[in-house]
Amino acid sequence: MKRVKRNIPKYFTISQEIIGKIRKGKLTPGMKVPSENNIIRDYKVSNTTARKILLEMESAGWVTKIKGRGTFVRQSNVLRSANRILSFTKNMIDFGYKPSTKVLEGRILHHGYSAVINRRRYVMKGPVYKIHRLRFADDVPMMLEVRYISLVLCPDIEKQNFEGSLYNIYEKEYHLHLTEVHQMLSTVMMDKSSLHFFDLEDSIPAFLIEGVTFCGREMVLEMDESIYRGDMYRFSVRAT
Amino acid sequence: MKRVKRNIPKYFTISQEIIGKIRKGKLTPGMKVPSENNIIRDYKVSNTTARKILLEMESAGWVTKIKGRGTFVRQSNVLRSANRILSFTKNMIDFGYKPSTKVLEGRILHHGYSAVINRRRYVMKGPVYKIHRLRFADDVPMMLEVRYISLVLCPDIEKQNFEGSLYNIYEKEYHLHLTEVHQMLSTVMMDKSSLHFFDLEDSIPAFLIEGVTFCGREMVLEMDESIYRGDMYRFSVRAT
Repeated sequence: MKRVKRNIPKYFTISQEIIGKIRKGKLTPGMKVPSENNIIRDYKVSNTTARKILLEMESAGWVTKIKGRGTFVRQSNVLRSANRILSFTKNMIDFGYKPSTKVLEGRILHHGYSAVINRRRYVMKGPVYKIHRLRFADDVPMMLEVRYISLVLCPDIEKQNFEGSLYNIYEKEYHLHLTEVHQMLSTVMMDKSSLHFFDLEDSIPAFLIEGVTFCGREMVLEMDESIYRGDMYRFSVRAT
Repeated sequence: MKRVKRNIPKYFTISQEIIGKIRKGKLTPGMKVPSENNIIRDYKVSNTTARKILLEMESAGWVTKIKGRGTFVRQSNVLRSANRILSFTKNMIDFGYKPSTKVLEGRILHHGYSAVINRRRYVMKGPVYKIHRLRFADDVPMMLEVRYISLVLCPDIEKQNFEGSLYNIYEKEYHLHLTEVHQMLSTVMMDKSSLHFFDLEDSIPAFLIEGVTFCGREMVLEMDESIYRGDMYRFSVRAT
């Protein structure tokens, strides 16, 4: 019996090879993929084949062509579960991104903090530590947060390093176990001052998330108010 | 027999009166509601009662207090729980609105329907009934939905009256018990064709919600794709 030669077209094999680099994170969202000319040179193919390779990757949703600028790895939306207590850090790692954080401001509010979440007013007695941070995935700004942390429950927390997960600090340094998070999701147009942080020129829709985090019944550990960019995030929810 | 005088507290009657003004649009989102002093003067009540009136309106979700500035009519006045299986009809009634529905289109898809929700593809075998509806609260268009219903599980459902709750039809007519809903929330700018349905001239941010509803393990009863106007809706979620 003769062996059947499998006729897989060259454009397909090469597009799969480049997609493999995206999957493995060698090419990350926002990065330019090889141009038509680069493909012709590196893979020794015709310009028709090179064009087919780029079209194949685009129609499969891996890349997007920006007129006059090139072809780029797409920003795949990050999915965030709203049913699980989940740190930004863990969420990003799960999606194959490298999380990082820039602390913008930190100060003590001696009078405390209070806000309404899901039709109930929560009051945090002072002192409260207010911290303003910008969170990145692979150096792309994803989320801007203001968190109000109980200094009654976490004395001296202002002396910690805030460039990682706060949830980690609560657990490791204060042995506080997070029991529940209540959040309220709104959709807003990103305002001018936020656009600046996200390196955006034009306003886009964003999620405004206001939340309260408990560490035991009726014990408010922190409250927060965060802006998640709408072009990057989706939320998954499960109702029963 | 003496007639019993019903003892409705004054603070409640007055808060209902002011809420009535908001419902009727005499006070619109962003407008200031009477201050504590105005209430004391206009309604001839004590400052304790005036404070109770404002608190009552705030906890019912109609107004929000901004420190040092006053109390204002809230922007989005419907809160929808993403943790509970909840019909539009019940959600509106809970918020004191009269729900109504306009059926825009209904047709049978013989080939079935399929979509990706939260990174998993769900396939509904045909025939599937596709129904496009606009849902109102007190005659204000709130939500635009396309639902894909299994005709395998709900034979002849196309003959039903679709001006009320579909959940009701599933339960009463087909004795199907909804077990779980998985949803994916995105934020989008409302597109031109949707703006028309909502009687809006300019685009606003909206929630795009794609969901799958189960009636038993892995049994897909329906899938949907809905637009909730962002100026009216907020979602509440609870994570554990």
